[in-house]
Amino acid sequence: MHERKFHTFIGCDGTYVESKIVLFGAPFDSTTSYRPGARFASAAIRNESYSIETYSPYLDRDLTDLKIYDGGDLELAFGNPEKALTVIENYTAQVLHDNKLPLMIGGEHLVTLGGVRAVLQKYPQLHILHFDAHTDLRSDYLGEKLSHATVMRRCWDLVGDGRIFQFGIRSGDREEFSWAQDHVFMEKFTLNQVDHVVEKVKDQPVYLTLDLDVLDPAVLPGTGTLEAGGVGFLDLLKVFTQVKGLNLVGVDMNELCPVYDPSGASTLLACKLLRELLLTLDQ
Amino acid sequence: MHERKFHTFIGCDGTYVESKIVLFGAPFDSTTSYRPGARFASAAIRNESYSIETYSPYLDRDLTDLKIYDGGDLELAFGNPEKALTVIENYTAQVLHDNKLPLMIGGEHLVTLGGVRAVLQKYPQLHILHFDAHTDLRSDYLGEKLSHATVMRRCWDLVGDGRIFQFGIRSGDREEFSWAQDHVFMEKFTLNQVDHVVEKVKDQPVYLTLDLDVLDPAVLPGTGTLEAGGVGFLDLLKVFTQVKGLNLVGVDMNELCPVYDPSGASTLLACKLLRELLLTLDQ
Amino acid sequence: MHERKFHTFIGCDGTYVESKIVLFGAPFDSTTSYRPGARFASAAIRNESYSIETYSPYLDRDLTDLKIYDGGDLELAFGNPEKALTVIENYTAQVLHDNKLPLMIGGEHLVTLGGVRAVLQKYPQLHILHFDAHTDLRSDYLGEKLSHATVMRRCWDLVGDGRIFQFGIRSGDREEFSWAQDHVFMEKFTLNQVDHVVEKVKDQPVYLTLDLDVLDPAVLPGTGTLEAGGVGFLDLLKVFTQVKGLNLVGVDMNELCPVYDPSGASTLLACKLLRELLLTLDQ
Amino acid sequence: MHERKFHTFIGCDGTYVESKIVLFGAPFDSTTSYRPGARFASAAIRNESYSIETYSPYLDRDLTDLKIYDGGDLELAFGNPEKALTVIENYTAQVLHDNKLPLMIGGEHLVTLGGVRAVLQKYPQLHILHFDAHTDLRSDYLGEKLSHATVMRRCWDLVGDGRIFQFGIRSGDREEFSWAQDHVFMEKFTLNQVDHVVEKVKDQPVYLTLDLDVLDPAVLPGTGTLEAGGVGFLDLLKVFTQVKGLNLVGVDMNELCPVYDPSGASTLLACKLLRELLLTLDQ
Amino acid sequence: MHERKFHTFIGCDGTYVESKIVLFGAPFDSTTSYRPGARFASAAIRNESYSIETYSPYLDRDLTDLKIYDGGDLELAFGNPEKALTVIENYTAQVLHDNKLPLMIGGEHLVTLGGVRAVLQKYPQLHILHFDAHTDLRSDYLGEKLSHATVMRRCWDLVGDGRIFQFGIRSGDREEFSWAQDHVFMEKFTLNQVDHVVEKVKDQPVYLTLDLDVLDPAVLPGTGTLEAGGVGFLDLLKVFTQVKGLNLVGVDMNELCPVYDPSGASTLLACKLLRELLLTLDQ
Amino acid sequence: MHERKFHTFIGCDGTYVESKIVLFGAPFDSTTSYRPGARFASAAIRNESYSIETYSPYLDRDLTDLKIYDGGDLELAFGNPEKALTVIENYTAQVLHDNKLPLMIGGEHLVTLGGVRAVLQKYPQLHILHFDAHTDLRSDYLGEKLSHATVMRRCWDLVGDGRIFQFGIRSGDREEFSWAQDHVFMEKFTLNQVDHVVEKVKDQPVYLTLDLDVLDPAVLPGTGTLEAGGVGFLDLLKVFTQVKGLNLVGVDMNELCPVYDPSGASTLLACKLLRELLLTLDQ
Repeated sequence: MHERKFHTFIGCDGTYVESKIVLFGAPFDSTTSYRPGARFASAAIRNESYSIETYSPYLDRDLTDLKIYDGGDLELAFGNPEKALTVIENYTAQVLHDNKLPLMIGGEHLVTLGGVRAVLQKYPQLHILHFDAHTDLRSDYLGEKLSHATVMRRCWDLVGDGRIFQFGIRSGDREEFSWAQDHVFMEKFTLNQVDHVVEKVKDQPVYLTLDLDVLDPAVLPGTGTLEAGGVGFLDLLKVFTQVKGLNLVGVDMNELCPVYDPSGASTLLACKLLRELLLTLDQ
Repeated sequence: MHERKFHTFIGCDGTYVESKIVLFGAPFDSTTSYRPGARFASAAIRNESYSIETYSPYLDRDLTDLKIYDGGDLELAFGNPEKALTVIENYTAQVLHDNKLPLMIGGEHLVTLGGVRAVLQKYPQLHILHFDAHTDLRSDYLGEKLSHATVMRRCWDLVGDGRIFQFGIRSGDREEFSWAQDHVFMEKFTLNQVDHVVEKVKDQPVYLTLDLDVLDPAVLPGTGTLEAGGVGFLDLLKVFTQVKGLNLVGVDMNELCPVYDPSGASTLLACKLLRELLLTLDQ
Repeated sequence: MHERKFHTFIGCDGTYVESKIVLFGAPFDSTTSYRPGARFASAAIRNESYSIETYSPYLDRDLTDLKIYDGGDLELAFGNPEKALTVIENYTAQVLHDNKLPLMIGGEHLVTLGGVRAVLQKYPQLHILHFDAHTDLRSDYLGEKLSHATVMRRCWDLVGDGRIFQFGIRSGDREEFSWAQDHVFMEKFTLNQVDHVVEKVKDQPVYLTLDLDVLDPAVLPGTGTLEAGGVGFLDLLKVFTQVKGLNLVGVDMNELCPVYDPSGASTLLACKLLRELLLTLDQ
Repeated sequence: MHERKFHTFIGCDGTYVESKIVLFGAPFDSTTSYRPGARFASAAIRNESYSIETYSPYLDRDLTDLKIYDGGDLELAFGNPEKALTVIENYTAQVLHDNKLPLMIGGEHLVTLGGVRAVLQKYPQLHILHFDAHTDLRSDYLGEKLSHATVMRRCWDLVGDGRIFQFGIRSGDREEFSWAQDHVFMEKFTLNQVDHVVEKVKDQPVYLTLDLDVLDPAVLPGTGTLEAGGVGFLDLLKVFTQVKGLNLVGVDMNELCPVYDPSGASTLLACKLLRELLLTLDQ
Repeated sequence: MHERKFHTFIGCDGTYVESKIVLFGAPFDSTTSYRPGARFASAAIRNESYSIETYSPYLDRDLTDLKIYDGGDLELAFGNPEKALTVIENYTAQVLHDNKLPLMIGGEHLVTLGGVRAVLQKYPQLHILHFDAHTDLRSDYLGEKLSHATVMRRCWDLVGDGRIFQFGIRSGDREEFSWAQDHVFMEKFTLNQVDHVVEKVKDQPVYLTLDLDVLDPAVLPGTGTLEAGGVGFLDLLKVFTQVKGLNLVGVDMNELCPVYDPSGASTLLACKLLRELLLTLDQ
Repeated sequence: MHERKFHTFIGCDGTYVESKIVLFGAPFDSTTSYRPGARFASAAIRNESYSIETYSPYLDRDLTDLKIYDGGDLELAFGNPEKALTVIENYTAQVLHDNKLPLMIGGEHLVTLGGVRAVLQKYPQLHILHFDAHTDLRSDYLGEKLSHATVMRRCWDLVGDGRIFQFGIRSGDREEFSWAQDHVFMEKFTLNQVDHVVEKVKDQPVYLTLDLDVLDPAVLPGTGTLEAGGVGFLDLLKVFTQVKGLNLVGVDMNELCPVYDPSGASTLLACKLLRELLLTLDQ
């Protein structure tokens, strides 16, 4: 019988047991303050992934050579951020407990906090590489502590000074930029100092969080909060090569919003980025 | 100097003090489980209202004859339903205290609960007329008590049996329909029994909540959860005439989602409905 | 050589000399006050017409049996309504001089005035049947005499009382409705009295102007100013049958706005209406 | 571990062995002459089905009570209609051999021919109920025998006169309508005579093929070839009730084209129709 | 009472008296020859401005530190360019009379002529910096003197040779480019010579007119006439720095067309540009 | 009579006899495996071409100086690739027989095979320059020999090793890249070696095939299969200059898909590219 069922990201049909990487979706966007819809990202990425190849001419590697487990999407109730974070934390902790690398697809950026909480349990020396257009360093947003706009500040609450490294930042309020000077490493506008930072954290466990809005809106219009002046696709590919040798213990990619992607270019770019990320990580 | 600033619904430039009706927006959609975006409804309705007339040929009345206050939008934090409901409840209570009629524009349907809480304080005998495609009678949604899918059940928690009257319902799970038989009046699919119900509640304080998805998707595609087989625009206009004589003490219109309204027809229909509603209520 | 060039409305490849009907476009929308784009209507109708059939099962007639000339689009400068009207008037006058029936595709509704001016020269007893959501009876619009919102008032300036018959009207300001009572025949909301009016004008030369927004937005979302509560497609087809016996000396169809027609349904409906209109007129 | 995998139509997670109905997709649209994209229908229907309920208030039945097998999508090469039909025919034949009812989701309408070929092998007395805006009775299309525009003629080649019953037809060329008079039953424009035909075929094996463009474009804009003047959603629901008692041995639903469905209303309507169809058939 | 009313550009809530810059909209696009819709630009920019920050990390300045008056939109009749220009001229003249800097948001590019007329009254030595994809130097367009395609030629009529400096130009007819050689400074394709020109005009009063289509369509798809091969966002930011020291006596930004901006990226880029422009000008 | 009929590409109104270049469309996309719609490209390019100028400031040349014949679109049956290729081959052969240069606008990339077959008959030493994101070198696609994904392999079947030169390639399966090493010249990712290859083929007859998806999706979102990381518009313009001196005996440009081009930027870019291509070729 000829049957084709689409339910994993392309080429990710390994079993849980045999896989080193566990891919999963966190379809949550309840705290998005501008344009919601990141909840649809993981499903869109899986659906559209069948239009890209499993082979990367950039890396000369193929997903079909690897074993990767796609755990599907977590079931997260809308409107309750704390509970959603707990579900994410528990799932991530289980993956870590089984000595696998968690790779989460958001959702809005707040989901990162769930992942970081779990990873930090296992790796108290955790350092965080953060690629984003926005600082996400507010102490609260309209009084809320848990928000896509506060997520890196909440991470800082956990890891403290000197452990967060931000790249590509080009938006935030004045207080955030001012506060950042004393507490985090921030490279504004570009990715130029990635090599420098990689050298600094090369002996540490590292969590990499990629907010896709670090890319220029011309390249990735499908995200909630567009910020002109971003980096290019090849710039980001280069980052993957740069961080390849690090001890990456947790990774996420978030804030794709397929609702604002009329040509489909953003979702396809996310698919291609995810392929390159998987091929880079599983070496 | 020739200047034109748009910031109220067309024709609603009365002061708070002189107005009998207070229009306000509740841009909240954090519990929306399918397609978010109702947060943009009140702003879209105000913006587009300048393309309709203030005069109704249906009623031969004109908004320019009335005094209506447009209070703008409440500031509601995303991701915290209970706090949002409190803001809505407090605002509504103030309006009621000043002997004015609150007319809230959602937002997702959960905002109704904030309004009903306030109105019920003043009118313990409150009855609720509910126009919707969905029952909204779940006891919880993925464990959450506060949700667009549970809002009428939460209202029932407050008012009890025999006080909620539903019309146009055509979607829900089996338990909701089953539970409804013992606790609320439900007219499935149509609006046929509105006159009958109006007769029953004619001596009671009445809250009217209008979920725009009661309309057929052909007429109103711009809503989060589309349900084929709905009622028509003129059917709803007729309802306004039918309920005109009731003691309406609170009104809301919700679930317009401009994100899924590519031709703009849904927002314009909502504008026209709101004009007719205002002209009906202020008599 | 297999070649197919699309440049007339489907089935309208007659020569000017041999044709009884002359179809032409008036791509003008400079006075549109809300959403412009009707300028694209005639081109869109020609392009998409190749997806409908030349045969009508409603009438059991086929465009391939007729000789109809498609004169293409007039060249009209944007921003100069009076000059555009003159070009339309001159073209229409030539068509009439050659004893053919002008059938103009707008453009915004103001183009009708150019047509009526020419027809009135030849037929001083002209009566006008007007299908529209809007009265178009303002004496001026923001001080402008020439506007889509004043076009029927300008026609009235030419033909006077009792010669304009309006159907389907459901929007306008109070003054327009009030003024109409003394000067024109107006059937609000429906097309019910078409037969009655046809009987009244059956011995007169008649100009028929069809603003497509008389249709309900569910049926025709692609128009500049949407008004809920309109008539259906079959209602309009019936009108064509009702007016068939009249002495129609000028016809236009206007206000299709393809920019707001994401599914293409509106343009295709206009194509089908035009086919039915042509098959009705050329008998 | 909280995991949710979307890969069947909602509520259709029965095993092949235990199920009476086998649902499968035929994502093929290579012969579509106007707007392609029906290939995306079955995937879209599965994805969006999770936003509707499994319970039908129309029938008071629930998909969770049934066992239905969703076989996923057939793998069909684009550009080779004959090979695609063979794959469809073979799959359908297997389903029939196992005494199950095949329910195919197109794709373009040509896929029906594959299904009919298989069903006719088992049921030589097959009669066909055909709901569509178009006759699909051309003898060829630009020289091609296999086309969405010829599919019912190809079915007639197999079953002969008096075995095809068409409803809702409102488009075709003159020759098709003329040929139809001698060879098939055709009800133009409406569904009025369904009861009459059901009575005629009540003792025969029946294949039901539903081209969704029989619906009005206001209700279902998302299809390749839109024809104004169609039937309503409730009209079609009624048909399901009317045909319930027949000996249905093959069913398909086709021509949803999600590419032209910007509000998502068409896909959701198809989901709801499919739920009602499944609940009707499995009794 | 928690109320939030959106009616000025973010952070521009100064009073007229206290402000050095007066922002106002000129929603006019009647002479647009290709795709109209620039009329919606100023409203869209105001609405969406609430999704950007008031703080600029590029300049380390914040709108909340300034006093800027947003005068709303002028009321301009469609279809009468001369009258619209007069309204613009009068408003601008008043602003200049009060020793404030007028910053106009179009609308189509013709609106610049109204501004230049007023500024020239006060500053006869006016020089004009013009950033655009198009020359806008036609002597007339289809016989019309007043057009978006002739606006810089009309400005030249007023200021004469050697006073207009064009950058980024990459479209026009041959006569325009030929004529330009003798009458204006034109830098084709790039912004390379801005510094050179700034040096030349550093002692003169300068009007800066920015047609957003100077940007590449990848960066700004939402404009009427797209021209591939344009400049980038950061290129334009750099220009603001370059011209900062000039005696700028009038500024406009025009030709955003939100109708063709499905992802919203263009409007948001315009918001960000406007913020940077305001922060640059008010120093 | 003022009439304007749009039916050729702008400025291409030469007669067949007097023209050196014959432009024609091949609206075929039946083998497209992901997102069909390239069939609409040639019509869209003609329609939108009237919004660009005939003059190129890049080349200082004007289409109005040339004689170019636009032969319209071939009539190609959907679903039968072999027959479509035969029609293309025959038309191209006729053009070549008359000593003119064929310039074909696809359609999907498979149409190239029809052109190459004809050109090879006249020029057995044919070499092929191929600009594309994809290798198109599969030996078959789901068993089909004729496919957009196999077209360059089919060309190789005809011309053999060392005659195909690929640029900008960034997608394919591993076997394609591996096979390519022994049989074709392939420059991955960039256009850097065009000069080098031009030198190699400068004495040979050359066919140039341009798949527009070689461009970055930011620049050209409107194509079937988007691949991030592509080349820019100016990069491609430069190629035209580089190949100008070659003996180009056949040219095509394909894979524009207007269905996924919501802002219209892709179609307009294709118009501009085609203008530059025509001005380059006819020297």
